[in-house]
Amino acid sequence: MIDRWLNVRSLLSEEKLAQIYKYVDIDTYKKVHPATVVEHAQSTERWINIPSPLLESYKMIGRLTPLQRAYRLEKALSTNNKIFLKREDALSNGSFKINSALPQAYYGKLEGKSKVITETGAGQTGVAAALAACLYDLECDVYMVRNSFKLKKLRRLMMEMYGAKVIASPSEFTKSGKSFLSKGEVNGSIALATSEVMEEILSSNDCFNIAGSLLDFVLTYNTIIGLEVIKQLDSQHIEPDIVIGCVGAGSSFGGFSLPLIDHYKDRIERVICTESSSIPTLSKGKYCYDYADGEGEGDRYLMYSLGYSFTPPPMHASGLRYHAASPIISHFVNQGTIEVQAYEETSALASAIELAREEGLIISPESSYTIHAIKKICEQCNNKNIVAIVTGNGQLDLESYSEHL
Amino acid sequence: MIDRWLNVRSLLSEEKLAQIYKYVDIDTYKKVHPATVVEHAQSTERWINIPSPLLESYKMIGRLTPLQRAYRLEKALSTNNKIFLKREDALSNGSFKINSALPQAYYGKLEGKSKVITETGAGQTGVAAALAACLYDLECDVYMVRNSFKLKKLRRLMMEMYGAKVIASPSEFTKSGKSFLSKGEVNGSIALATSEVMEEILSSNDCFNIAGSLLDFVLTYNTIIGLEVIKQLDSQHIEPDIVIGCVGAGSSFGGFSLPLIDHYKDRIERVICTESSSIPTLSKGKYCYDYADGEGEGDRYLMYSLGYSFTPPPMHASGLRYHAASPIISHFVNQGTIEVQAYEETSALASAIELAREEGLIISPESSYTIHAIKKICEQCNNKNIVAIVTGNGQLDLESYSEHL
Repeated sequence: MIDRWLNVRSLLSEEKLAQIYKYVDIDTYKKVHPATVVEHAQSTERWINIPSPLLESYKMIGRLTPLQRAYRLEKALSTNNKIFLKREDALSNGSFKINSALPQAYYGKLEGKSKVITETGAGQTGVAAALAACLYDLECDVYMVRNSFKLKKLRRLMMEMYGAKVIASPSEFTKSGKSFLSKGEVNGSIALATSEVMEEILSSNDCFNIAGSLLDFVLTYNTIIGLEVIKQLDSQHIEPDIVIGCVGAGSSFGGFSLPLIDHYKDRIERVICTESSSIPTLSKGKYCYDYADGEGEGDRYLMYSLGYSFTPPPMHASGLRYHAASPIISHFVNQGTIEVQAYEETSALASAIELAREEGLIISPESSYTIHAIKKICEQCNNKNIVAIVTGNGQLDLESYSEHL
Repeated sequence: MIDRWLNVRSLLSEEKLAQIYKYVDIDTYKKVHPATVVEHAQSTERWINIPSPLLESYKMIGRLTPLQRAYRLEKALSTNNKIFLKREDALSNGSFKINSALPQAYYGKLEGKSKVITETGAGQTGVAAALAACLYDLECDVYMVRNSFKLKKLRRLMMEMYGAKVIASPSEFTKSGKSFLSKGEVNGSIALATSEVMEEILSSNDCFNIAGSLLDFVLTYNTIIGLEVIKQLDSQHIEPDIVIGCVGAGSSFGGFSLPLIDHYKDRIERVICTESSSIPTLSKGKYCYDYADGEGEGDRYLMYSLGYSFTPPPMHASGLRYHAASPIISHFVNQGTIEVQAYEETSALASAIELAREEGLIISPESSYTIHAIKKICEQCNNKNIVAIVTGNGQLDLESYSEHL
C-alpha cells in the first residue's frame, strides 16, 4: 500500500511558488485549517508520510482502487490502444473527494478540534467531509447551497446517514446568512455558503474547515491516486503514453497526473485535461492573479481564471462549474506540460452512456468528458497505453443522463 | 480467483431432492432458460467449473469483493467478537444479483439466444439482468412493476444506462398485460410482470429469462460469494463461528452460507438467517408444497411459505417481500442447520444507520436486518468470529432511511 504522498509543491521551483503565492496570507489558512495541514500547505519536502491510522482509514473506504483495463471499450472503439481506467468511483462515498477529506479530519482530530464545518454545492465535498468526520468521531455541519439542498436530496440524505447536520444556505444561523436571506437570496451559491462557514469557524476555537479542491495540500493528499497507478502499471510491466482526466478546480487531476508526470518524465507523450466548453477556464481563461472565491474577498492566486465574477452556467457536471483552476495545474498548463481539451456536454454524456454499456460503469457526469477525450484520442493514434481517471460514481446523478437515454 | 461453483444440490441426498421437486416439471425450465442452465438445475455434481470468459466478467464487475473487518463497529458495540462483512454492495451494479445474472446471460448467448426478457420489482434483479445482457451483447427487455416504475426512477435509469428497454407492467405489449389493464390493475405486481415475461418468452425462439432468486441454480451461481469468503478467511488463518445473512427468497444467503456450512462443518456454531417480522416466512410459515408464483399457476416446491396468496405488506426492504423461501434454504432450516431471526423494520434501519456512521457503508435496507442481528449476537457471546453478508448498496434506497435520520 502507498504510505506517502508526493508533495505537489516540490515539483515547482521556490521562485515559481513565490510568484504564484505572492498575495497569499498564510494566516488566513491558520484560522481555518488544522496546523499540520497548514504545514503541508507551506512545505516543499518531496514526500510526506501518511500516518498509519490514516492508512487504515484509506483502506476502510476502499483503497487501493482498481485500475481497470477497458477491454470491451477498446473493442467497441476498434482500437489497438490499451485503455486503463483508475476507478475512484469505487470508493465508499462515491468519489475521490474522500482522499483529501480524510487527512484533514485526521489532523483536526489529532489537534483536539471537535467539529468540521464545510460548504458544499451539489454535495460531493459535503459527503466526503461528513464521512471523514464520522470516521474520526468529529461533529460535522455542512452548509449546502439551498438550491442543491432541494434538488439533490439523496446526497443530502447520504451526509445525514454519516451523521452530519446539513443546513440549507443561506441560513438563519449566521449573520451573513440572515443578511443574504433578507436581500431575497433564495437559491444560494457556493460563495454564500463559504461566507457562512467562515463566519462560524472564525467565531469558534475548535472548529475547522475541510477544503474540497484547488489548494496545494488538497492536490498533495490526492497523489495517493497517481502513486497507486504507478504501482499498478509496474506490476503489469506497462508504462503510460497518454494520461487523461477532467478538471474542475484540478484536485483529482493533480493527484492523478502529477505523480505520473514526475515518474514517467521521459516516457509520457501527452497529458490531457478535459473541461466543459461552457466553462473554458483552461482553454480560454487568462493566466493572472485572481480570487479563488466568487466574492473577491479572499486571497489572490496566479492561475487560469474566467474572472472571479464569472457565473458558470447550469450544467450536469456540477464539479466542473468553477471559474478558475488550481495554481499548480495552471502552472503546468501554462508551461505546456499539460494540454487542454474542452468538450460539449451532449457529446460527453453520450460517451459515458457508451462506457456504461461496454464496461458496466455508471460514472459521474464530470468524468464523461474524460471518456469522450479517450474516444477522440483513439481516432488519432495507435498502440498507445492510455491511462485515465474516473473521478466518481454516477448513481446519484442518473437524472443527468435521462434526456440522453 | 474462485474458478468453480459449489452445486448446492449436491449437499442434499437424492431422496431429499426427489421429495422437494416431486411436482416440478423440468420442461417448464427448458422453455424459459438456456439449456446449460437447465442442466445445472438438474445436476447433482459437487462442482461446476466457471468458464474463463465468465471469470473475466466476474472480475470486470468487481469480484473478488472485499471481506471487511468492521473494527469500528466492534469498538462501538464494546465487543471482543470479530466482525467480518462480505461486501457484495461493492459490485458495479450495487448488489449480489449480478452473480447469477452473468452466467445465465453467458450461457444464453453461447446457445445463440439474442434477447433477455425479465421481470423486476424494485429493480435490483432488472439492473443485474440489464448489466449482464449488455456485457454479453444481448438485447434486454425488463418488465418493471408499474408502481416501482414510477417510484424507483433511478433504478429504471440505471437499467436504461445499460441499454435495457424498461416497460411498466402491466403493459400494452402482451395479452396478459392488456387483460390486467382492462381490469383496472394500475400498480402491477411481480406476479403480473412474470405473466407478461412468460408470454413473451414462450412466443419466441431466441428469448430467455434471467431468474433472480429461489431456484437451485441461482443459489449455486451465488456460491462464488461463500467460496471467496473461505479463501479470504484462510489467508488470515481465521475460521468462522457464527454466520449471518438476510433471506428474501434465499439466493444470496444460500450462495454465502452453504459453502461455509459445507467447509466448516465441525467448526460453525450458529448459522443465522434474518427476515422481516412483517413477512415471517421462515419463522412462522409452513413447510409444505406451495407455488413459487403469486398466482398458483407454476410449479409447487417443498418449502417454507406463508401461502402463495399472501400479500406482503409494503416495506423498505423490498427484496424481502416474498411469501416463500428457496427449497434448499427451507430444507436446512427445517433440518435445524440454519436458525431464523425475525426483526422489525425500525430497529433494523436504525442499525444500518449506526453501521454507516461506524464503517462508512451505506447498505441496502435488506441487509439492515443482518446488522441488527450482529448487534444482538454481540450482546450474547464473546470471542467469536462473526461472518456476515452485506447483499447490496443502499445509495439508491436512501429515501428508506430518511424518516429515521
